[in-house]
Amino acid sequence: MEADRIPRHPDVRTITLQRVLEAIVDPVRRSIITQLCDASGDIACGGFDLPVSKSTATHHFRTLREAGLIRQYYAGTSRMNALRREEIDEVFPGLLDAVVAADRGPSRNGGSP
Amino acid sequence: MEADRIPRHPDVRTITLQRVLEAIVDPVRRSIITQLCDASGDIACGGFDLPVSKSTATHHFRTLREAGLIRQYYAGTSRMNALRREEIDEVFPGLLDAVVAADRGPSRNGGSP
Repeated sequence: MEADRIPRHPDVRTITLQRVLEAIVDPVRRSIITQLCDASGDIACGGFDLPVSKSTATHHFRTLREAGLIRQYYAGTSRMNALRREEIDEVFPGLLDAVVAADRGPSRNGGSP
Repeated sequence: MEADRIPRHPDVRTITLQRVLEAIVDPVRRSIITQLCDASGDIACGGFDLPVSKSTATHHFRTLREAGLIRQYYAGTSRMNALRREEIDEVFPGLLDAVVAADRGPSRNGGSP
């Protein structure tokens, strides 16, 4: 039905660490991942708190999707974004958790004995 | 004594996730980290298996050192490289392990149920 509106997603078996790292090295894209991790559900493209224009954000969403980190789908007219957490965790165990935790930086603030 | 030959290293408290990710997004630099993880001790600059020239490798070592990932020191005329594992683990728990494991890619090959 809406297949032509739904963008392609890479198979989890073709996701590479190189693409994942190239995706999350960008602070805006890392923020998208962190916000998805913190959210109780999926987030519409317009629902993120991002310091960039809508068109720039669209580019970042695409990069994340092509790297295999997020899955995009339509809910009515909204393009929704879902973290492919279980798939990523299966291929690269611990990576997402470590990056998101590091992005929050708790160990730096509370690391003193 | 040899203070002028020993390069500066960032304090662990100033190491940022951004710099760390910018360092390890490069496959050659990631290979240096992986080889240091696999080694039983520190490795001289000439002791790595790298697909780049000596001068390019020197640039990569510098980037890793400035990001806070490795510590360099002299042993005679050899410049040695040590992974700052404990310090990195303290600031960004699980990050190094996850990246090195992902770089080896075991989960992709053995992940089928």
